[in-house]
Amino acid sequence: MTANAPETHPSDETLRGQRVGDFSLRHIGADESAQKAMLDVVGYESLDALADAAVPSTIRQEEALALEDPRTEAEVLAELRALAKKNQTAVQMIGQGYYDTITPPVLRRNILEDPAWYTAYTPYQPEISQGRLEALLNFQTMVQDLTGLPIANASLLDEASAVAEAALFMRRANKKVKEGAILVDSEILPQSLAVLQGRSEALGFDVVVIDVANGLAQYEGDVVGLVLQQPGVSGVVRDLKDVIAEAKGRGAMVTVAADLLSLTLIEAPGLQGADVAVGSAQRFGVPLFFGGPHAAYMAVAKGLERSLPGRLVGVSVDDAGLPAYRLALQTREQHIRREKATSNICTAQALLAIVASMYAVYHGPDGLTRIAERVHGHARSLAASLAGAGLELLHDAPFDTVTVSVPRRAADVVAAAKERGINLRLAGTDAVGISADETTTEAVIADVVAAFTETLGLEGELVSADAAEGFEIPESTRRESEFLTHPIFHSHRSETQMLRYLRKLSDRDLALDRTMIPLGSCTMKLNATAEMEAISWPEFASIHPFAPDEQTVGWRELISGLEDDLAAITGYDRVSIQPNAGSQGELAGLLAIRGYHLANGDSNRDVCLIPASAHGTNAASAVLAGMRVVVVATAEDGTIDAADLTAKIEANEGRIAAIMITYPSTHGVYDGDVRDVCEAVHAAGGQVYIDGANMNALVGLAQPGKFGGDVSHLNLHKTFCIPHGGGGPGVGPVAVRKHLAPFLPGDANAWHGGADVPVSASRFGSAGVLPISWAYVKLMGGAGLTRATQAALLAANYVSKRLADYYPTLYTGQSGLVAHECILDLRELTAKSGVTAEDVAKRLIDYGFHAPTLAFPVAGTLMVEPTESEDLGEIERFIEAMISIRAEIDAVAHHEIDLEASPLRRSPHTAAAVVDSSWDRAYSREEGAFPGTTSRQDKYFPPVGRIDGAGGDRNLVCSCPPIESFEN
Amino acid sequence: MTANAPETHPSDETLRGQRVGDFSLRHIGADESAQKAMLDVVGYESLDALADAAVPSTIRQEEALALEDPRTEAEVLAELRALAKKNQTAVQMIGQGYYDTITPPVLRRNILEDPAWYTAYTPYQPEISQGRLEALLNFQTMVQDLTGLPIANASLLDEASAVAEAALFMRRANKKVKEGAILVDSEILPQSLAVLQGRSEALGFDVVVIDVANGLAQYEGDVVGLVLQQPGVSGVVRDLKDVIAEAKGRGAMVTVAADLLSLTLIEAPGLQGADVAVGSAQRFGVPLFFGGPHAAYMAVAKGLERSLPGRLVGVSVDDAGLPAYRLALQTREQHIRREKATSNICTAQALLAIVASMYAVYHGPDGLTRIAERVHGHARSLAASLAGAGLELLHDAPFDTVTVSVPRRAADVVAAAKERGINLRLAGTDAVGISADETTTEAVIADVVAAFTETLGLEGELVSADAAEGFEIPESTRRESEFLTHPIFHSHRSETQMLRYLRKLSDRDLALDRTMIPLGSCTMKLNATAEMEAISWPEFASIHPFAPDEQTVGWRELISGLEDDLAAITGYDRVSIQPNAGSQGELAGLLAIRGYHLANGDSNRDVCLIPASAHGTNAASAVLAGMRVVVVATAEDGTIDAADLTAKIEANEGRIAAIMITYPSTHGVYDGDVRDVCEAVHAAGGQVYIDGANMNALVGLAQPGKFGGDVSHLNLHKTFCIPHGGGGPGVGPVAVRKHLAPFLPGDANAWHGGADVPVSASRFGSAGVLPISWAYVKLMGGAGLTRATQAALLAANYVSKRLADYYPTLYTGQSGLVAHECILDLRELTAKSGVTAEDVAKRLIDYGFHAPTLAFPVAGTLMVEPTESEDLGEIERFIEAMISIRAEIDAVAHHEIDLEASPLRRSPHTAAAVVDSSWDRAYSREEGAFPGTTSRQDKYFPPVGRIDGAGGDRNLVCSCPPIESFEN
Repeated sequence: MTANAPETHPSDETLRGQRVGDFSLRHIGADESAQKAMLDVVGYESLDALADAAVPSTIRQEEALALEDPRTEAEVLAELRALAKKNQTAVQMIGQGYYDTITPPVLRRNILEDPAWYTAYTPYQPEISQGRLEALLNFQTMVQDLTGLPIANASLLDEASAVAEAALFMRRANKKVKEGAILVDSEILPQSLAVLQGRSEALGFDVVVIDVANGLAQYEGDVVGLVLQQPGVSGVVRDLKDVIAEAKGRGAMVTVAADLLSLTLIEAPGLQGADVAVGSAQRFGVPLFFGGPHAAYMAVAKGLERSLPGRLVGVSVDDAGLPAYRLALQTREQHIRREKATSNICTAQALLAIVASMYAVYHGPDGLTRIAERVHGHARSLAASLAGAGLELLHDAPFDTVTVSVPRRAADVVAAAKERGINLRLAGTDAVGISADETTTEAVIADVVAAFTETLGLEGELVSADAAEGFEIPESTRRESEFLTHPIFHSHRSETQMLRYLRKLSDRDLALDRTMIPLGSCTMKLNATAEMEAISWPEFASIHPFAPDEQTVGWRELISGLEDDLAAITGYDRVSIQPNAGSQGELAGLLAIRGYHLANGDSNRDVCLIPASAHGTNAASAVLAGMRVVVVATAEDGTIDAADLTAKIEANEGRIAAIMITYPSTHGVYDGDVRDVCEAVHAAGGQVYIDGANMNALVGLAQPGKFGGDVSHLNLHKTFCIPHGGGGPGVGPVAVRKHLAPFLPGDANAWHGGADVPVSASRFGSAGVLPISWAYVKLMGGAGLTRATQAALLAANYVSKRLADYYPTLYTGQSGLVAHECILDLRELTAKSGVTAEDVAKRLIDYGFHAPTLAFPVAGTLMVEPTESEDLGEIERFIEAMISIRAEIDAVAHHEIDLEASPLRRSPHTAAAVVDSSWDRAYSREEGAFPGTTSRQDKYFPPVGRIDGAGGDRNLVCSCPPIESFEN
Repeated sequence: MTANAPETHPSDETLRGQRVGDFSLRHIGADESAQKAMLDVVGYESLDALADAAVPSTIRQEEALALEDPRTEAEVLAELRALAKKNQTAVQMIGQGYYDTITPPVLRRNILEDPAWYTAYTPYQPEISQGRLEALLNFQTMVQDLTGLPIANASLLDEASAVAEAALFMRRANKKVKEGAILVDSEILPQSLAVLQGRSEALGFDVVVIDVANGLAQYEGDVVGLVLQQPGVSGVVRDLKDVIAEAKGRGAMVTVAADLLSLTLIEAPGLQGADVAVGSAQRFGVPLFFGGPHAAYMAVAKGLERSLPGRLVGVSVDDAGLPAYRLALQTREQHIRREKATSNICTAQALLAIVASMYAVYHGPDGLTRIAERVHGHARSLAASLAGAGLELLHDAPFDTVTVSVPRRAADVVAAAKERGINLRLAGTDAVGISADETTTEAVIADVVAAFTETLGLEGELVSADAAEGFEIPESTRRESEFLTHPIFHSHRSETQMLRYLRKLSDRDLALDRTMIPLGSCTMKLNATAEMEAISWPEFASIHPFAPDEQTVGWRELISGLEDDLAAITGYDRVSIQPNAGSQGELAGLLAIRGYHLANGDSNRDVCLIPASAHGTNAASAVLAGMRVVVVATAEDGTIDAADLTAKIEANEGRIAAIMITYPSTHGVYDGDVRDVCEAVHAAGGQVYIDGANMNALVGLAQPGKFGGDVSHLNLHKTFCIPHGGGGPGVGPVAVRKHLAPFLPGDANAWHGGADVPVSASRFGSAGVLPISWAYVKLMGGAGLTRATQAALLAANYVSKRLADYYPTLYTGQSGLVAHECILDLRELTAKSGVTAEDVAKRLIDYGFHAPTLAFPVAGTLMVEPTESEDLGEIERFIEAMISIRAEIDAVAHHEIDLEASPLRRSPHTAAAVVDSSWDRAYSREEGAFPGTTSRQDKYFPPVGRIDGAGGDRNLVCSCPPIESFEN
């Protein structure tokens, strides 16, 4: 037995030697007898023996993971309740980009709490993703309508990084002024400015804050772009038409960061001349979540769509000519553009964008306008009441936010309101901000007024909204254009309608609740209910990110506990969970390396070595961190080419900033020489960045912080059980050794240009979903986590072995073993038969499976990662399907059936296709619909046949199509 | 405008005249414009005008409902959280039939909180109910295995009423001793004894409590049956073989009320000779719920199955010869047997039985045994520790419960434990009971021991389970037989497996989340999420029914608030929510009438008049209340035949106890003469019982407590939004005028033979689901409830009018209108074509619908109740399906297609059937699978074709079939 053998169970829960409620037995799919059978096939005695053989001894960790004993689900839920009680909910009127909102319960239960939605993967396989693609298309349509811009993407990570993306976008899209400053409205949200400045500093362009009330003449240099905020952080609503026109007159492009709800009352930025609009969709039903995850949005003017970062849903047709949704323009994605990428955005906030879109579907334009009018009425009531009491307001045109001048008394007023259970915004020592929202009542407004008047010794009374005059949105800015005119925003007003719409859409999709999703590099494991439940508890979900510390004790305890656990697991010294996606973790890690070199005076170190096999996001992140990418070749066996590494290091002497390697490599093998690579780079003065995407092959067996890494990012949505949510949220914590700790990201809301460059709008990024990973670690304990890793290794090696005679595994490491995934090489079969890996992927749908990863990291292959959560029965079902497909390939290769006529090429099969009376295919209906042992009783039929991707890109449609187009 | 016009909205939430968050607009499916279109078809100007025309002025209520103003969903959830905070959770060790348990989170989220499960109806249409039928069959198999008896039903309402049912069962099934006493073990649970005694008193048989330790010789009379409790209320586990043998030797039958978890360690009652076993499945994962709902079980010996009360799932085959589940022996059901019924059980506890069955599936026999061993270990540890401290135990053979003799100090010890957050059982002044359960830890046991020793000034230390000797289950009673050997209890150990199994089963079923369920008399309306959410909050779900009052303040406030609201709605003076099903409400109401007559010295009043059109349960309940049923004829137009009523009253002068009428009648019409009927019965000295099954046609428009009723029961699972849960839970509150209030059911746990005869085991029956109805009333307010009633009337009349040319409505009332449902008469079509109402019901499945009510109250008809929650689009989809089916009927009538070959007779169509290459039917595959405008993309295929019901009854199989039988 190694040091990583299962611990004995804690004695308190032991009676007759049996622990009741060992969660690891629920998390790991294969039970002991199944593992035994699988080990027999793979040829090892035990999980430990397999791990010993697979993992190079050079990196193997010696000690068991230093984590607390595992808890049962009931214990973890009790601990989470105790932590929740240490948070205090309050009336949240701080605003500044975060507003309380009412999540319609039907959406909470049937999206946020429904595994059919949250366990779905990113919709790269569109035929089994039509439900969430429709929901995301609704999101795009909603954003397009509200912003008055024709193309919106399917969400970005947060408003601050969306502002940064908009600045980068303007820098590459502006054909008139190619170099120059980005001017920024002084009314911008502080956190947006901080994130933008952090990015600009690495990329070397100027960000200049100006008061746009005085026009742009105050800045005389070239201007690439202007970023405006509407309403401003003070709450002011301004007519921006003139300043937009002025900027455009100087050749600048213009971005408006706009509050989506306010746009029901304020004219759309697109109609005021803006080229770009960004912002947050949080207040459309997505809880505050202590700062995230929330869906940000970005919309652009006509002609700019091909430069738009992020994912874009488009409409195409399937093989029967029916409308079908898909991700459009995928070649724009960073993982394909690699070092030519202009954004590293990868994960979106799909689940939250879906909630926001359904909020709009449920309320419709009338309902949204009513909500906005009500919010606006409360703000006007507040403004009139405070002005009536003699207070000076910073502006008299609020949408939802009023800022009041209270020289030297701001803290007193905020404290008085807090006493009444209301959080206000401390806007420096002399001003207080108050934001109304959907939950605000007249009683709350009266309380706020009283907090001011009593603290300041003023007389004043509540002026009702109807009586509040002089505090309107400027007439010239009132919205006149229509929005949300598509029928989808007019046809789901009752809860029953909404419930059925959600069920219908989710039924169109295949998620983990129906099938394994054996996606290599994506680690689609169990998202356990006990891990998920706490995220919708109000004591976690209803906390404002800028709430006073004493109200967030539980949150911060949970977060620092999770950071400590992740440090213990990875072998690093410090972890920051701020990055709200893997891409942001990469950026944060590289910015930390950059900061470290600069602090050491090494300003020349700007080369980032990246192996050819790396995930494209690595290169994109390096570019965004201001580094030059130098590619290192990959050897035949999938490892880094040592000679080429040496050559590249020598060629860049004194300039090596870092190497980014993924471990185990994207080829799915453990490289025994990784320590040598790390040492070579260290010797050259570089830092080692180990991409943690494949951490599921390491936990408990090896620690990147111990075998050579200086920094890693993790993907909590892979290894640590945060669900993929149909394409987000993700969480990408960054873990560093001690010398890099000062360069971990700081709080954007309190950042003043230090080394701790923030990457997300809020201090703790996607805090709202962190209870999931926290719970996972507590439930499993060190031994459970280690067993999970071993079980993942076993499953991948079992698949590889069982399919060896049908599909060879491309790369293996020591002892001929793979790590946690295996690349099935179809290239020879394709050469012989013409059947592509894509055909196999689509054909798997007929068998009821989501395809493995297609064409990454090697074209013509499928990468399979079963994870530890799949049981032997499901793994065998997959293997049988693959073997059955191999027979179908052989039939093509042997000319028994023509490729174009084969079920492979004509897959997937819809119900309409196989029921069609005019069926004239070269194979039977049953072969089409029920291949192999596919269940007839529980058959999943995809709603559409194979989709024409290229055609959709040529004829780009990215908003809801007219309903007539769906008629048969 | 009448008095019932919508209220103006409360001003606090009004801004610019628009209330945001009016829930009634979410609950009611048709919006204003749809209502206008529907009113045009029906021929009325407004909802008020329609109601004025439909509801007889003789009963119309004058005042608006006296309820509080409506709340928004957010407000209601906040109020529920405030109420929840007024409850206190504690370590619950009171036992006495209720034990804390861990609901596996995967079951909580994916059954209890999943609309696919909870909005399903009772599986009377088996083809679209295979999922829940399989789950219930698992429940039956689990009970059969654990009790060692070959036939178990699909659940009963609670353990106490199950004991009563067992006594009645023995009285009718015993062929040897036909009259005599029921002997009852002195170790029986007090609440079971109380409910049994209440029943026996009405039916006139003796219940005699004896100490079975001394054998049965102490009772010399004839013995029909013996009821034993194992473990006893004191916790003692006894070897019952001898006393069972003795009873059987005297010709008695024997029932054992057994704790299901203990049966993993204690030999099965069936193997010890018992004929019947009953008990609760609560501790198999179902929360304490302050007393209910929980699934009780009943299992019987071979040969007795045809007398078994309740529902029974059986295995049959479908038209393709594949195994298929269905309810077996339905002719046993009370609504068919009417006055010959021997039980009035109707609703079961399906949803809770499903949870309990899945708990067993998830844990398997090994897991259950481990849990039981652990519980037992804690009990032994406790016994040894307390005995070691010098305390006297009432027995030394606990399974989970120890009772300790503490002369005159019991209250002190219980108080000391309460101080430590632990609730113990006060067993009189001199003894304290402690029950361990799945959640018990060693720390809790130590705390309990300390509460005893510190209070009593004793020295004592904790003896561990391993060291506890002398407190074992008697060797002769240890279980040796196997249980849960079927593969279903061995194949879902990981959470992923469990999740997918639950999804697979629910996907086989059609529930409200996918389609309207237009079931006349069942009121399948929206079960809104905001109404449902609170039931799983621990502060509601984790409260023991016998917890001290100060821990249940919130619960009792909620319950009395709901009782008051229901009284205000119905026009009665007092309401008790104790009855946990409509049938129990009927019984409670009739027992109140009985008690009232007896209190007045009217012991001859035992005749219950029941119209021929009444639901059969009415008659069954009257029988169980010790009354004789006299049937009153129904006139041509569906109303009560006045002449026959007069004749029956005269013929039974001085003996009339009551009349039971349903209003509106089961014919779906308002009877203008109902006041006359009530007056005639009152004049004859009888009481008027108005069955509230059709209350959804009355709320806000008429009040049974005002137009002649003395007592009514309501169905909260119909009118008041508690979901049907696939066949339970139900809640059937009883509402009475003041003179009957003293006869409302009392607390079974504290009952000593008074007039307040309890009908349920716990004081508040199915308390756990009452937040649903509470929330519904608060969300709607009086005006919203009234509008809902009007919208329900509109929908029914719209369907009736739109289908008039295709299917005539059998009965209409004044102005030619129906109430909230309409009976479509197919008899003439059947006569012409041979197509039966059942054919139409099955064919509707192909269109994606659950059938309307079939053959009730009139054979050859379908009764349609759309409810107010369906939107016009869904109603039109149904109408179009019915019109399309009418064309199919005509094709048969016109001999265009042979009936046996028609899609009507061959419906429903499975995917396997329409994909079958050998299709040779007389119509196309498309006509089979996608009739009318049925969606091809979102098609629901039933998992089985039409099921052979009669064949299944002839060859009765009521446990899980071997898996080989499912092979194609």
